[in-house]
Formats: sequence, C-alpha cells, structure tokens
Amino acid sequence: MKARVHVTLKNGVLDPQGKAIEQALGALGFGGVEEVRQGKVIEFSLQESDPAKARADVEAMCQKLLANTVIENYAIELDG
Amino acid sequence: MKARVHVTLKNGVLDPQGKAIEQALGALGFGGVEEVRQGKVIEFSLQESDPAKARADVEAMCQKLLANTVIENYAIELDG
Repeated sequence: MKARVHVTLKNGVLDPQGKAIEQALGALGFGGVEEVRQGKVIEFSLQESDPAKARADVEAMCQKLLANTVIENYAIELDG
Repeated sequence: MKARVHVTLKNGVLDPQGKAIEQALGALGFGGVEEVRQGKVIEFSLQESDPAKARADVEAMCQKLLANTVIENYAIELDG
C-alpha cells in the first residue's frame, strides 16, 4: 500500500520559504501570486494491507516523527 | 484560483532525506516501510481566473523557479 503525507505549516506560523518564493516569482514577472506556503510531501510504501491499520500506523508516524504538531498540520492519503 | 505544485525527485536520483526518514521510522519500530521519498509542496493563490491561462503560468513558474527539471518532476493541481 502506498502512503502520501502532506506536512504544512499551520496558519499564522511564519513561512520564510514561502515568502522567498513569492518575492522571486514577483521578480521574474509573475504578478498576482499571493499566500505562498511551502510544505513537505513524504511518499512511501507500507507492507500493511489493511487500510484501517495502515492509517493508524501512518498517523502514529506523523505524531512521532514526520510532523511537528506544534506548528505543522499533516494530511494522510492512502492508495491501493 | 488556488494552485498546488508537487515537486519530487526523479526516479534514480538519490534522496538522502527520504533515506534518513526510512531509517528513523525503522528505529522507532515502524517496520515494513520502504521506498521513502521526500518532496516539496508549494501552495499559492493566483489572480488569473482562466484555467488554461493559469495552468500555463504555473507551468512557466515551475520551469523557471519552482523545480530543477534536471533532477525533479513537478505536478500541478488547480482548484477553483
């Protein structure tokens, strides 16, 4: 089973990478681009084939390692 | 219009961040996790409301700034 986890900064947390991208896009002539936020995406395959158990495992991985839940949100997608 | 761009390393390009995550998950007791790859996700809002024009703009942003097309793939999602 394939898993994909999105880790994004919570609203209100400063995102200097996003700001840098926004300014660079402006400098390159792309106007009208706003609210740029950069996050991470982590993709992996799991041996677990039961969707409910796989989701619980990935949830635990997010809590323990993949996301800093003080400042980051995460979203889990499972496939296959 | 909201845009979301996924930037991921091409197959065959070494991904040391992904390897580090894989090993850390193993050390935490999460077995059966393989092929971990880490990528970036960039989200922003565009003033352009025509979907075809918006997609062409975001495509150009990816080529010029957001992705290093020598080693990275990108995928564009538009919404609204």
